[in-house]
Amino acid sequence: MSRILTRRSLLSLAVASTAGVVLGRHFFEGPEEHVARGVASIDTGSGEHGGIGAGSVPASSEIINAGKLKQSFEQLGKYVYLTPEKLGGGTHAVDLDSGRTLAWISYWNYGDSCPISHHLAAYPSPDPYKGFDFVNSTQGGDNIMIYGLATRIKEHGLLEKWGQGNHIYRVNFDGSSMNLVEDVAETTGIGLGVHITIFPDGSGFAAADGQKDVAAFFDRVDNDAKTTVQMAFRADWIGKESTGAMDDNWAKGGTLRIVRLTKAKETGKYDYYGTKGNKIDWEMVPMAEYLVYTGQLPGSSPRTLSGLDAVVHHPGNRYSALIIRMCSAAVIIDRTSWEPVACLHNPDGSPGNLKVTKVSSDPDTWDIKFDDIKCVGHEAGFSPDGKNFTMMNNIKQNNMAVYDTADPNPTNWKKITYVKDGSWVGDYPSPFHLCFSMDGSKMFVSVLYPKPANSGTCVVDTKTWTIIKKFQNVGPDCQTMSVSYDGKYVFQIFSGFQRLSSGVFIYTQDTLEPVGYLPNFGGHHDCVIVPTKVEQLKNSRCTTL
Amino acid sequence: MSRILTRRSLLSLAVASTAGVVLGRHFFEGPEEHVARGVASIDTGSGEHGGIGAGSVPASSEIINAGKLKQSFEQLGKYVYLTPEKLGGGTHAVDLDSGRTLAWISYWNYGDSCPISHHLAAYPSPDPYKGFDFVNSTQGGDNIMIYGLATRIKEHGLLEKWGQGNHIYRVNFDGSSMNLVEDVAETTGIGLGVHITIFPDGSGFAAADGQKDVAAFFDRVDNDAKTTVQMAFRADWIGKESTGAMDDNWAKGGTLRIVRLTKAKETGKYDYYGTKGNKIDWEMVPMAEYLVYTGQLPGSSPRTLSGLDAVVHHPGNRYSALIIRMCSAAVIIDRTSWEPVACLHNPDGSPGNLKVTKVSSDPDTWDIKFDDIKCVGHEAGFSPDGKNFTMMNNIKQNNMAVYDTADPNPTNWKKITYVKDGSWVGDYPSPFHLCFSMDGSKMFVSVLYPKPANSGTCVVDTKTWTIIKKFQNVGPDCQTMSVSYDGKYVFQIFSGFQRLSSGVFIYTQDTLEPVGYLPNFGGHHDCVIVPTKVEQLKNSRCTTL
Repeated sequence: MSRILTRRSLLSLAVASTAGVVLGRHFFEGPEEHVARGVASIDTGSGEHGGIGAGSVPASSEIINAGKLKQSFEQLGKYVYLTPEKLGGGTHAVDLDSGRTLAWISYWNYGDSCPISHHLAAYPSPDPYKGFDFVNSTQGGDNIMIYGLATRIKEHGLLEKWGQGNHIYRVNFDGSSMNLVEDVAETTGIGLGVHITIFPDGSGFAAADGQKDVAAFFDRVDNDAKTTVQMAFRADWIGKESTGAMDDNWAKGGTLRIVRLTKAKETGKYDYYGTKGNKIDWEMVPMAEYLVYTGQLPGSSPRTLSGLDAVVHHPGNRYSALIIRMCSAAVIIDRTSWEPVACLHNPDGSPGNLKVTKVSSDPDTWDIKFDDIKCVGHEAGFSPDGKNFTMMNNIKQNNMAVYDTADPNPTNWKKITYVKDGSWVGDYPSPFHLCFSMDGSKMFVSVLYPKPANSGTCVVDTKTWTIIKKFQNVGPDCQTMSVSYDGKYVFQIFSGFQRLSSGVFIYTQDTLEPVGYLPNFGGHHDCVIVPTKVEQLKNSRCTTL
Repeated sequence: MSRILTRRSLLSLAVASTAGVVLGRHFFEGPEEHVARGVASIDTGSGEHGGIGAGSVPASSEIINAGKLKQSFEQLGKYVYLTPEKLGGGTHAVDLDSGRTLAWISYWNYGDSCPISHHLAAYPSPDPYKGFDFVNSTQGGDNIMIYGLATRIKEHGLLEKWGQGNHIYRVNFDGSSMNLVEDVAETTGIGLGVHITIFPDGSGFAAADGQKDVAAFFDRVDNDAKTTVQMAFRADWIGKESTGAMDDNWAKGGTLRIVRLTKAKETGKYDYYGTKGNKIDWEMVPMAEYLVYTGQLPGSSPRTLSGLDAVVHHPGNRYSALIIRMCSAAVIIDRTSWEPVACLHNPDGSPGNLKVTKVSSDPDTWDIKFDDIKCVGHEAGFSPDGKNFTMMNNIKQNNMAVYDTADPNPTNWKKITYVKDGSWVGDYPSPFHLCFSMDGSKMFVSVLYPKPANSGTCVVDTKTWTIIKKFQNVGPDCQTMSVSYDGKYVFQIFSGFQRLSSGVFIYTQDTLEPVGYLPNFGGHHDCVIVPTKVEQLKNSRCTTL
C-alpha cells in the first residue's frame, strides 16, 4: 500500500469541477495537455429512473481525455499479464512488476501458416513466475483477408491445409519459456477460433466460434495427457422469413435451435476441424453483424447464422451462457445436466427470459422461439457475486441489458434495467467488452468508436447501473479489460484494429484515477492476468468477455 | 534538461567504493536488491599499458547488477524505436515519448511462411511520427529448426517455396500503419538474411548473409519504384589445408577470395534468391563459428565459408567494411571504384592490414593471403568521427581490436590496441555488439554469456580504450544497442535467445547511470532509433552493428 500512496502523493491530483484535471508534471507531460474535454463533476446520482429501471440515462459523468496521457510510471504488482497478438501471430506474458517480457510464443514457428492469435484464458497458478497454463484460440483461413493487406498469403496456398486456423492451443509456461503442449482442435476434431473461458473451479474451459455457431466444453488434463470434450452444442437460426429480405430473416423472428453434437463412433472425433462447419467465410468483426443481415458477408449458410461465438460462466460453477450475437441472446446451459434451461433476450422492449423447449432426442434438440429481434448483441458477463448478468445490445440499439441472476433457477432471471448513455446513439460509439472490479461495485466497459478514431472506456456504478466516469480517446479499438486481483488497477488493452497503434491504458479500480500507459509488448487483442487462486477466476477470463 | 535533472535528484544515486550502489526507492524496488556484486570505484585510469597499446586490461571498473533493477520511469524523448522480433516474425515501432506502440508489421500476414525478422536499419525522416522507411532482412528455411522447438513446420512443407527466407523487406510507415512496399530479394534476385546498414548519406543500404558469403549494395528508390543493385560481392575461403582437419582449414591460413557478382543477362537478376547459394544449412548463431570449424554445421560447402554476414560504413561515406567472421577480418571496399582496397585482420598477434591483390577480371577477383587465423571475429563498427574501427575477436581470443582509421587511405589504417577484460577468458563472456555515444567519448559493448545466463553491457572509454563501467545480469542474449540522438540514453535490447525473457535496458550516455527497463513490446533482436537527420546515421545502424 505504501507504494501506491507514494504515487498518489506525487501525483498531486486535483479535480476541478469544471476546469479540468491536472496531473503532476513528473508523471504526465504537462498540465496543458491534460485538460479533459467537457469535464463535469462526478455524478454518482441515480439518474432519471432512480438508477434501477429501464432507460436510465445518466445526466453527466466525469470525462477524462486519456489520449493526452503518457506512459505509466508504476510498479504494477507481482502479476503476469498475458495477451494474444491477433495478426502478430503469438502471445506474450509480461511481468508487471519488473517491466520485462517474461516469455512468449509465436505459433507460425510450429507449422501454422495462418495463426491469428485471437482469445485466451489462463488457469490459476500459485506462482505464475514458476509456471502456468493457458488456452489460446486462433483464427485462420479467409480471416486474414479482411484487413486491407496487400497480401499473397492466399495465392501462396497458405490458407489451405496448414492455415485453416480454428486451433485451440494449450500452452505451458515452464518458468523459462512457453511450450505448445496440445492443439485441442486436432485432438478432438472441434476447431473453434473465438472466445476461451476457464470454468470457475478451474477444472476445464469452454470455447466457441461464431462462424460455425459451435460451443464446446473441455476438461483440464495434465500436460502429458490429451484433452477430451465434455459436451458440444451447435446453435442454428431458422428465420420465419427465411426466404425474404436478409434483414427480415432475423428481425421478424424465428427459432433458435440448439443441437447436441456427437463424435463419430469410428474416429472418436467431432467433424469440426479447421474451417469445417463454417457458415460464413470470415468472422463478424465487432459491429459487423449488419454485414450478415445485409447480405455482405459470404458463406455457405449465412441465413442459419446465430453468431454463437462465446461462453461465459456464472461464478456458481453450474450455469454457463452461450452468447448468441445475431439474436442478442444468452442461452443458459446447466453443466450438471448438460441441457439448455433458459434463454435471456436482451433488446430494450423484448421479453427478458424465453422458454426453451426440447423437440427431439435424436440428436438432443431444443427450440427457442423469438417473436422478433430488435437488435444484435455481443459481449457479455456475470458479476463476481453472480447476482447480475449483462450483455451488450448493439447497432440498432446501443445499451447494456442488466439482469438480476440471484435466483438459483435461471428461468427466474429477470431483466431489471439497461445501462445507457446519451452519446450511445447510432451505430457508434458502442459498448463493447466489460469486466467488474474485484469488489463488484463497478463495471468497466470498453466503448468502441470506428477506425481510425480512438476508443474509450467507461465506469458503471453497479448500485445504480449508471456511468460515473468516462476515459475517452484512449486508443484505437479498445478490447477486453483485466483487473489486478489486489483491487488496484484496471488494464484496458487497445489493439489498433490489428495494424495501428497499440498499448495498455491503466487506471485505478477504486478511485478511478488515470495512471497512464504501459508500452505495448506485442499483445494487442485480449488480455488476462494469470490468477494465483481459483477464486480469482470470478474476476478473470471466465465470467466476462 | 529539467526532466533529467528532476529524475536524477530523485534517484539519489550513491556510489560507495566497496559497499555497493543504492538507488532511490521510488525508481527501483529497494536498496537491498541493488547492491552490485563486487563493486569497485570508477576507474578511468590508463591500465597496464597506458591505455593505448596492445594488451591493456583495466584493473577495475564499476559494476552494476542490472538484473535487480525495475522498469524505467522516464519519458525517453520524442523518438521512434524500431525493433525486429526474430522468431516473432515481425517488427514493432514504439513511441518512446508516449509509451505506446506506434505501428507494427507481421510478415507471415503477407504470405511468408517462415519470416524470421532478423536485422533492420531505418532511413532518416524529418518527422518519424508522420512517416519513415526501413529495410528489414529475414531468415527462413532450416534456421527455424535450431532452437529446440517441437515444430512441424518442416514436415508441413512450409520451409520450401514460401518459407526459404532471405527476404529483404522494404517497409513504409505512413503515419498510421506499416506497409510492405517491396521484397528487394524478389526484385533483384539477391536474398540476404542478416545485417542491414544504411549508407552514411542515406542514399541506399548494404545487406549481407553469412550462409552465402554474399554482400550487396542497393540504391534507395521511391516507394513506387523498384530497388536496383549497385554492386555485389562474394567472399570465398580457400584454406591451405583444405583437405585436412576442419579446424586447420582456417587456422593454418589460406586465401580469402573476393569475387564481383554479375546478374544474368536475360533475366536481369542475380541468382541468390531464397536459399540459393547457401554454403551452410543455417546461420552461425553468435559464437557458433566453432560449429563450422569442428564440422558440426552441415551444408553444401562449409570449407569455403568465410562468414561474410555484415557490412559497416565509414562515416566519410566512401569506404565500407565487409565483415568476415571466420577470418576475423574486415575487407574495405571503396564505393567510388567498387574495388576492395585493404583488409584489416584483427586477432591479437596477427598483422593488422593485409594486402589485396587483383587476380582476375573475368569476373573481377581479388585475393587476400592469410598466414594463419588465430581466432574468429564477429560484430564491428566505425566511431562516429571515422577515426577508429573496432571488431570483436571471439572464442580462441576474446577482445576487441581497435584501429586508427584517420588516414584517408585504408591501406594505412593501423591496429593500435585491444580492448580486453580480465573476465573475458575462455569462450564466454564474449564482447558482442557495439555502438558509440553521440560525442564519441564512449563505446558501449554488449557482453554475451551463454544461455540461460543473463548477458550484460559495458562501457569503454575511447581515449584509453579501457572498460570504465559494467552493467551485469541485464537479461538473456543482449543484442545491439541504440543511442538517443540527443545524447541522453543508451538502449540495450535483450532477446532471450528468442524464447525466454526480453526487454530493453536503459542507461544514460553521459553519466552512465542505470535508468531501468522498458517493457518489451515484441521487439527482441536488433534495434534502431529512426534518425531525423542524415548526420545521425553516424550513430545509427550504419556505422556499427
